[in-house]
Amino acid sequence: MSQLPIIGITMGDPAGIGPEIAVKALQKKEIYTMCRPVLVGDAETFQRAANLVDSSLKVHPIYQISDAQFQHGTLDVYNLHNVEIGQLTYGKVSAMAGKAAYECVVKVIELALEHKIDATVTNPLNKEAMNLAGYHYSGHTEIYAKLTKTKDYAMMLACGKLRVIHVSTHVPLRVACDRVTKSRVYRVIHLANNACVKLGIKQPRIAVAGLNPHAGENGLFGREEIDEIAPAIKNAVADGLLVDGPVPPDTVFSKANGGMYDIVVAMYHDQGHIPLKVVGFQYNEKEQKWNAVEGVNITLGLPIIRSSVDHGTAFDQAWKGTACENSLIHSIEYATRLSQAI
Amino acid sequence: MSQLPIIGITMGDPAGIGPEIAVKALQKKEIYTMCRPVLVGDAETFQRAANLVDSSLKVHPIYQISDAQFQHGTLDVYNLHNVEIGQLTYGKVSAMAGKAAYECVVKVIELALEHKIDATVTNPLNKEAMNLAGYHYSGHTEIYAKLTKTKDYAMMLACGKLRVIHVSTHVPLRVACDRVTKSRVYRVIHLANNACVKLGIKQPRIAVAGLNPHAGENGLFGREEIDEIAPAIKNAVADGLLVDGPVPPDTVFSKANGGMYDIVVAMYHDQGHIPLKVVGFQYNEKEQKWNAVEGVNITLGLPIIRSSVDHGTAFDQAWKGTACENSLIHSIEYATRLSQAI
Repeated sequence: MSQLPIIGITMGDPAGIGPEIAVKALQKKEIYTMCRPVLVGDAETFQRAANLVDSSLKVHPIYQISDAQFQHGTLDVYNLHNVEIGQLTYGKVSAMAGKAAYECVVKVIELALEHKIDATVTNPLNKEAMNLAGYHYSGHTEIYAKLTKTKDYAMMLACGKLRVIHVSTHVPLRVACDRVTKSRVYRVIHLANNACVKLGIKQPRIAVAGLNPHAGENGLFGREEIDEIAPAIKNAVADGLLVDGPVPPDTVFSKANGGMYDIVVAMYHDQGHIPLKVVGFQYNEKEQKWNAVEGVNITLGLPIIRSSVDHGTAFDQAWKGTACENSLIHSIEYATRLSQAI
Repeated sequence: MSQLPIIGITMGDPAGIGPEIAVKALQKKEIYTMCRPVLVGDAETFQRAANLVDSSLKVHPIYQISDAQFQHGTLDVYNLHNVEIGQLTYGKVSAMAGKAAYECVVKVIELALEHKIDATVTNPLNKEAMNLAGYHYSGHTEIYAKLTKTKDYAMMLACGKLRVIHVSTHVPLRVACDRVTKSRVYRVIHLANNACVKLGIKQPRIAVAGLNPHAGENGLFGREEIDEIAPAIKNAVADGLLVDGPVPPDTVFSKANGGMYDIVVAMYHDQGHIPLKVVGFQYNEKEQKWNAVEGVNITLGLPIIRSSVDHGTAFDQAWKGTACENSLIHSIEYATRLSQAI
C-alpha cells in the first residue's frame, strides 16, 4: 500500500455520542498523518456535531469515495442523508435513529467489500433502537458476520498491553458455558494468533483462561478445563503456537496487563470485558462521568477489517460536548495498523 | 475496647510464602501501633522465616495468649509445634504441610470463639495439600463456616475504593448460575450493607451486578436479572437500603473503582475476583514476578472476624525472600478496623 489506508467511520446512533466523538477525533491532525478517514452517515448531523465541537470544521458531503479530499479541517462525509433532524431527540431511543445507524453499518461494509475503503471503524449503535427499526441483531458483530457471510469470527478487545479475544459474546452465561468446546476454543486460539501476527508480533504469547474458578482446580469446580480447554491448547501447541493454560481467570488478566502475554483467550463476554474496562475506563465520581474511555473492539475472522469503540451510545452524555473520543482514536489507529499488515 | 485489638495470624502452608510475609508484615512498627498481633503456627518455621528476612527478629513461642509480649521486634508465636522441619520441602505439596496449615486455622478459630483474640487473619493454604492430609474443604471460608456453624456467609474482597461481595464462590460456573436466586441475592445485599456500616460508612451505596452480558439486555441474553436479581433489589430498597442495579457487569467495577459505589454485589467468583486482581496485582514482566499484591479477603456473616490475603501460596516464589507482604498488611488493617467497630 503506497498511500495511507482509507478508513470508513460510521456515525453510530445519531441520538448518541457517535457524531460528536467522530468529529473530535478528526479534529486531531495526527489522524490525517496515519490514514485517510471518511465518515459514513448523515451530513447534516455531522454538521451539527461540528458546530458543537469546533465551528471552523467544514463538512464536505460526498457520494463516492473518490470525491473525498482527506484534508485536515474538512470532514468528508459519505452522505446517506438519513436522519430527519427535526425528529431527532438527543439521548432518546427512536426507530428513525436506529434505522440510520443500521444503514451506516451496511454501507461501510459494502464499501469495504468493494475495496473502496481499506478498513471500517464503527461508532456505537443502540440495540433497542435498531430493533424498533426492524433489524434484529444483537450487535455490530452479528451484522458484519451476516453481511460478509462469515461463520468463524470472534471479538477481540484491546487496551494498552492487554488484548482479549472471546470464545462467545452476546449470549446468556449458561449458553456461554455450552459454547466452551474443544473445536471452538481451538479456532479462537488460531484467530488470536493470526491477529497478533498481523499486528506485527512474530511469535505471539497466548494465554487461555479457564472457565471455572481457579481454572476448575483439577476438576473440583467444573470439568470444562479438562474436557475441552486443555485438549484445544494441546492441539494448538502441536501446530507450533505458543500457548499457556488453562490459566486461572482471576490472575491471567493481571499477568497479561503486566506484559506476560500478548493476548488472552477469554471464555465469555464479561470474563474479557470486565478487566478491559477496569483498565481502560476511568470514572469521575464528582462529575458522575467517565474521565477516560479507552479500548478498542476488533472483529477477527472477517474478510474485511473492523474495529470499534468499546463503549455504548452514552445517551446520558449525548450532545453535551463532553464525551471522550479516546476509544475512537485508538480504534482508528488499530484499523490503520491492521490495514498496513495486509 | 480500651486496648488495641489482638489479631491472630495463621502461618498458612509452611511450604508457601505465608511464614515469610507474616514476618515481613510484623517487621513494620506501624502494625504494633494499630493492633496486638500474634502468629499461630510452628515456632521453628517462623524462626527460619525470620532468619530469611531479618535475623534481629526474635521468635517468642507461647502456649497461651496471655503470655504474649506484643512488642515490635519480638514475634509472638502461639506454637503448635506441627511442622517437621526435616521433612519440609519449600514450594512442594505435602500432607504434612497441609495438616499443619489446617491446624493453624482450627486453632485461630477456636481462640476467636473463646474471645482470647479479637479477630483472625489467614495466610494462604494449599488445597491439594490439605486434601492429601484428609481435610476435604474447598478453602478457608468453608472451614470457618463449618467450625462456627454458619450457614449464611459471603466472601468480600477489597482493594482501595473497590469492595466486592460474592453470591457464590468455589463452585463450577454452571452451578454459580443456579445460585443466583432472589433470596440469596437479597441476603448478600444485606451482608454487604452490614459490612460497610461496620467499616464506618453510614449509608452504603450498593451496586448489584447482573449475571449475563449487558445485565441480560432486557431478557435478550438471559432472564436471571428479571426473575431473580431485580426482585431482590426491590426488596432491599423497600428495607431502606441504597441499592442500584442490576448494573451491566462490564462497567460496574470501573464505576465502583472510581468511587461511585461503596460495594458491588458480584454474582460469581471470577466476576468479582477479576476486577479486584486487575486493580490490586501488578505483574513485572522482566522479573516474572508480582511487583505488588494488594487486596483483602473478608468472610462476612461469621460470628468472628476473619480477613485474609487474596493470593495463594505462590509455591514458585516460596522461601526466596522476594514475596510481597502488602496484601497481608491490608488484611491486618481490615481485621483491626472491623474489631474496633464491634
